[in-house]
Amino acid sequence: IVRREVTRIVSPGTLTEDGLLDPKSSNFLAAVVPAGEWIGLAWVDVSTGRFTATALAADRLADQVVRIAPSECLLSSELTEPVDLPERCTRTTRPGWAFGQQVATEALKKLLGVKSLDGFGFDEDNERHALAIRAAGAIVDYLQETQRSQLGHIDRLLPFENESTLQIDAATWRSLEIAHTLRDGRREGALLGVIDRTVTSTGARLLAEWLRGPLTDAPRINARLDAVAELVDHASLTDAVRERLRAVYDIERLVSRVTTGRASPRDLSCVGRTLAGLPTLKAKLSGRSSERLTQIEQRIDLCPELRAKLEAALEEDCPPKAADGGFVRAGYLADLDECRELMTGGKQWIAKYQAEQVEATGIPSMKVGFNKVFGYYLEVTHAQRDKIPDNFIRKQTLKNAERYITPELKEYEEKVLSAEERVKEIELRVFGELCELVVEAGRRLLSTAAALAELDVLAGLADLARSRAYTRPTMVDAPVLDVAEGRHPVLDVMQPEGQFVPNGVSCAARPDDPEALLNADNVVKGETGKAKGEGSDPAPSLLLITGPNMAGKSTYIRQTALITLLAQIGSFVPAKSATIGVADRLFARVGASDELSRGQSTFMVEMTETARILNTATRRSLVVLDEIGRGTSTYDGLSLAWAITECLHNDIGCRALFATHYHELTDLANQLPGVANRSVAVHEHQGDVVFLHQIVEGAADKSYGIHVARLAGVPRGVNQRAEEILALLESQHDNSSELHTL
Amino acid sequence: IVRREVTRIVSPGTLTEDGLLDPKSSNFLAAVVPAGEWIGLAWVDVSTGRFTATALAADRLADQVVRIAPSECLLSSELTEPVDLPERCTRTTRPGWAFGQQVATEALKKLLGVKSLDGFGFDEDNERHALAIRAAGAIVDYLQETQRSQLGHIDRLLPFENESTLQIDAATWRSLEIAHTLRDGRREGALLGVIDRTVTSTGARLLAEWLRGPLTDAPRINARLDAVAELVDHASLTDAVRERLRAVYDIERLVSRVTTGRASPRDLSCVGRTLAGLPTLKAKLSGRSSERLTQIEQRIDLCPELRAKLEAALEEDCPPKAADGGFVRAGYLADLDECRELMTGGKQWIAKYQAEQVEATGIPSMKVGFNKVFGYYLEVTHAQRDKIPDNFIRKQTLKNAERYITPELKEYEEKVLSAEERVKEIELRVFGELCELVVEAGRRLLSTAAALAELDVLAGLADLARSRAYTRPTMVDAPVLDVAEGRHPVLDVMQPEGQFVPNGVSCAARPDDPEALLNADNVVKGETGKAKGEGSDPAPSLLLITGPNMAGKSTYIRQTALITLLAQIGSFVPAKSATIGVADRLFARVGASDELSRGQSTFMVEMTETARILNTATRRSLVVLDEIGRGTSTYDGLSLAWAITECLHNDIGCRALFATHYHELTDLANQLPGVANRSVAVHEHQGDVVFLHQIVEGAADKSYGIHVARLAGVPRGVNQRAEEILALLESQHDNSSELHTL
Repeated sequence: IVRREVTRIVSPGTLTEDGLLDPKSSNFLAAVVPAGEWIGLAWVDVSTGRFTATALAADRLADQVVRIAPSECLLSSELTEPVDLPERCTRTTRPGWAFGQQVATEALKKLLGVKSLDGFGFDEDNERHALAIRAAGAIVDYLQETQRSQLGHIDRLLPFENESTLQIDAATWRSLEIAHTLRDGRREGALLGVIDRTVTSTGARLLAEWLRGPLTDAPRINARLDAVAELVDHASLTDAVRERLRAVYDIERLVSRVTTGRASPRDLSCVGRTLAGLPTLKAKLSGRSSERLTQIEQRIDLCPELRAKLEAALEEDCPPKAADGGFVRAGYLADLDECRELMTGGKQWIAKYQAEQVEATGIPSMKVGFNKVFGYYLEVTHAQRDKIPDNFIRKQTLKNAERYITPELKEYEEKVLSAEERVKEIELRVFGELCELVVEAGRRLLSTAAALAELDVLAGLADLARSRAYTRPTMVDAPVLDVAEGRHPVLDVMQPEGQFVPNGVSCAARPDDPEALLNADNVVKGETGKAKGEGSDPAPSLLLITGPNMAGKSTYIRQTALITLLAQIGSFVPAKSATIGVADRLFARVGASDELSRGQSTFMVEMTETARILNTATRRSLVVLDEIGRGTSTYDGLSLAWAITECLHNDIGCRALFATHYHELTDLANQLPGVANRSVAVHEHQGDVVFLHQIVEGAADKSYGIHVARLAGVPRGVNQRAEEILALLESQHDNSSELHTL
Repeated sequence: IVRREVTRIVSPGTLTEDGLLDPKSSNFLAAVVPAGEWIGLAWVDVSTGRFTATALAADRLADQVVRIAPSECLLSSELTEPVDLPERCTRTTRPGWAFGQQVATEALKKLLGVKSLDGFGFDEDNERHALAIRAAGAIVDYLQETQRSQLGHIDRLLPFENESTLQIDAATWRSLEIAHTLRDGRREGALLGVIDRTVTSTGARLLAEWLRGPLTDAPRINARLDAVAELVDHASLTDAVRERLRAVYDIERLVSRVTTGRASPRDLSCVGRTLAGLPTLKAKLSGRSSERLTQIEQRIDLCPELRAKLEAALEEDCPPKAADGGFVRAGYLADLDECRELMTGGKQWIAKYQAEQVEATGIPSMKVGFNKVFGYYLEVTHAQRDKIPDNFIRKQTLKNAERYITPELKEYEEKVLSAEERVKEIELRVFGELCELVVEAGRRLLSTAAALAELDVLAGLADLARSRAYTRPTMVDAPVLDVAEGRHPVLDVMQPEGQFVPNGVSCAARPDDPEALLNADNVVKGETGKAKGEGSDPAPSLLLITGPNMAGKSTYIRQTALITLLAQIGSFVPAKSATIGVADRLFARVGASDELSRGQSTFMVEMTETARILNTATRRSLVVLDEIGRGTSTYDGLSLAWAITECLHNDIGCRALFATHYHELTDLANQLPGVANRSVAVHEHQGDVVFLHQIVEGAADKSYGIHVARLAGVPRGVNQRAEEILALLESQHDNSSELHTL
């Protein structure tokens, strides 16, 4: 029978076991408080103590929750409206009072040890802040009930900067495959999987956080880019830094374990080892010129006293359980050394005593034993009973044997037991003291961990930039986009070296001021911007991309969105050069997904997502659309695509890329000043088709669906028949009655 | 500091903790052994002991793995080829030798306690069986390494009946949303979520298993239907059975816990309570006429001795840990009762003694204490030291106090301690004995659990059938399909009562024998089969469905597939009447999904899935296709759709439903004898459109994409413009140059 003790209640959102958690991902517990048009949302990673709260417009909840991907979400039992959560998220119902403002505020103040939440940027009297506080409070209440140990590692509540991040809705987040692939939810194959070159778990988690909230403030983006650039320029420094970072343990989760009383001596020695590596790391960073790196250097706190203490006290190789003992270094405490000697000496005496008694009594089977009731004893079988000397005191009679004690045995017993207990006591005391020291240094350690994580992300981005030949984007405020030889960050890696065909893009939002149309000097001129005529023309705002399937239309528009996203997290981008105007929102309508159980058809989903774009995109947004309108019949779809293109061009004027099969749309380039045609180059040779994957100016004149079908393995006969039908259709284009002869 | 002991290594596939497992789902650990064209696959649910192995054609692996959805999969370190696994599945690499046939066979024989695996249907000399054995052996090796306790609950290796189940490929499994929704992977909203009316966890898991492997053998399907029918007819019996089943605990997981030494007294009492409910349950089943129910009744083993023993031995309310004690009923063992009395008496004496001594010495602060080194003692502060009587023996000096013993105290100490230890000893012994009894009865309990699970599934299906007015399908061998007033099982429930519009379907595979075309008598005539002419015509094999979006085309073809699937697991179906020819394969190409990271465009995915259908469907298959060809330009797509329709009709001749936007295809009904047109009825009134969701004979004449766009929230201006363009397109149909005037 294995004994188990209930020390806490485990639920998906409160897991802290290393074996069950992905070190590279955060495991969030969230709470949602809907209140009409606004919603309070808070989330915490119990394994690291990272705790965030915010209030959102109700219709933004789904977008935000998809990005956070909590594994568990707390909802009030009094909720009447349904809350839209991803499936993998366990819904836990909590009593309504746990979401009350007063209860929540008190619980938070008590946990965080403050008199007011103002210091964290939360104003109790502000209605929206109150919603955030109520959500956060519900989390604290739940944790206090389920996590029986302390929650001291949760010492801050971070406001989520909702306003100053690039807005990405749930459909865009999913279809651009930023954190997970669409098909099977893998991280591998998604943008995150490809750009993550971090070497620490905290770094990996921070990079994911940056992707969840790209910046919209050029100076902040540039500060990150400056640091990445400096690390790119100093390759050997970057390599050395990354090498050192590899030896850094997950301080966030270690501190969390120590604070919640779940740490082991081994955990403490990991803290010590990490600290031991910091001086070299810090030294490497001294004298850097970029602001971020200088700040990181300053934020690395060497905690020399803690390090010295841990190194002095702990053995090289510590056990995973404090109760196992033997982890305090000999020589650390005279007291402990002495007791250990006594213990060893006493046990040796008892062994010798047994041998002596066996000889003296002539009972070879006599044995020393131990039990909790009367300690050490000598056991003799009934058969040998007569040989027992007088000074043996009988203590217990068993079925086959009798147990005796002697005064000498008792004397040493006390020595051994006392020493043993004392050794254990001292080791546990030392362990407790060391834990206490780590807890005291908690905030310094966590701040150092945050600096190291940032360093890791920046160095990882530098490594990515260097190894994949990324370039530093020039960030500008004007809503332009001018990329030369851009590549899709994921396919660039997935496809064999040198196989991916790079493509440029050049576009700019339509001038705000109608006057500016006449004076195009203040608009950036794109490389390929000459499509509309001579050099002085402004870059188009909307690119229509036509051309065969499989030739890279979708890839092209996706890569444009991803390059913008990368630039706004402060990363270099896969291109020869790039000038990127900071976008406020990023929309991607690519691929289709069904929502059968809600009674929505594919086309309805497509139109709903499109409506959202038309209703919320601004002149500063970037919109990429793939095959809008194909979910309905030809004329319907064409009419809608036409009207949508006009709306994007005339009313919104934002940068937009629209890949379409409706060749008819290409006429729009002649009618609307900001629309330009692009297509995918194809080389046809003896009935075989080679897709060059190159985006060129002008519209496509042919499609290659049947060619794709052959590649996909559609039976030869079916394909031949399709070719025949196609030939007939094309030759008898104007006479549909001829179809009857097929 | 909380003490923890490492008792086993936890990984996603070996979880057994109730809190971390969904009781309604199995948690599978799988192992894969690729060997050229064949692949060995084994999977086990450690929490229940269910262990299955099989060998598959290599290209079927992905289909099977998607259905099993293991949370962890073992792969050999020597593997050179990549293995396609779902993302949620953790990949664990194991040494190559663990997959060796000899090692595997020995490990299995030892675990299962057999001399040969023949008894389980595995022949070591058969090459494919050997693959299955190697996969199973790797699992056993891994479990032995990670699960430190015994694995006795895994006592059988089941062969997976690959051949006699309805073949469903991964794309079909996903797009029909059988176990999870496509959009967000929820169980709720999927077929399983809607039809699962089971009341026990084992029942829920069995129903999922039935869905993973629907039958293709009419007699076996009918045996299940007979049972469901009997339960439908006897409503009060079914209600009573379900009520009783609610009190049945998860015997599979309980036995597993007992066998692996992780059980608690509470677990044992759950076994006892379940047994206590069985006699009534069994009695309810006596005299049933259907074969399955009769067999279930026979398979329910009341285990009366075990039940009597558990009831006699255990308290009503047992603790979750054996070490807590107090769970053995008073009166069960004279020995135990006596010790408990002694223990209580001794403790009372010691309390009294302390009071006496306080009075006698005049030291009010004197206290009795206990430690492990010298047992009970009296503690007195140094200040009171002078008042100590002579008969007190000093044992220890502390900083502030001294500790003494007295002969009387020692005398009672031994009584109390001995009794206490004895009580614990006896209770743990009783617990061990009871566990032993459960282990001995393991196989009988598991077989009873299996019978109860089947009863639960059948009763659940009966409850579903009754409450949702399902009907018993007539299963026939001829490949026909004749459903009157069929409903989509999920939408039928999701949509408000009475809102779902039922639709019939009638089709039949094309006659095998060309002669039979002339003599149509042996083909079932469908209700709506008269479309082609007069009553004597055979039912069509391929239905082309045209009509506006949102009007239910996709729903209609999906419901047809789901009704067939339901029938083949032995369920009643949502229809007024249904005659269903058993299908060998079910194909659904509905909705689109992208596979960007593999460089495949949406259209490539569509064509790959279509190619698979055309290459593997047989005359006995059922194929449903949604909008094939829309991923390319108009003429290409139409040509392909046309040729695919011809191939399905001429070469395969299977039952097929094809929803399409290509109205041009409807001409095929005039040219091919087995093709018939169906469309969705629409009511137009003053510019407003009402979709009647009714499938009627004949082709549609108009599409309603712009109407859908309005419903989806596309801005009014955009819609009005689209209407204008559409009007122009339609009026100037033959003169595309007119587009320039838009």
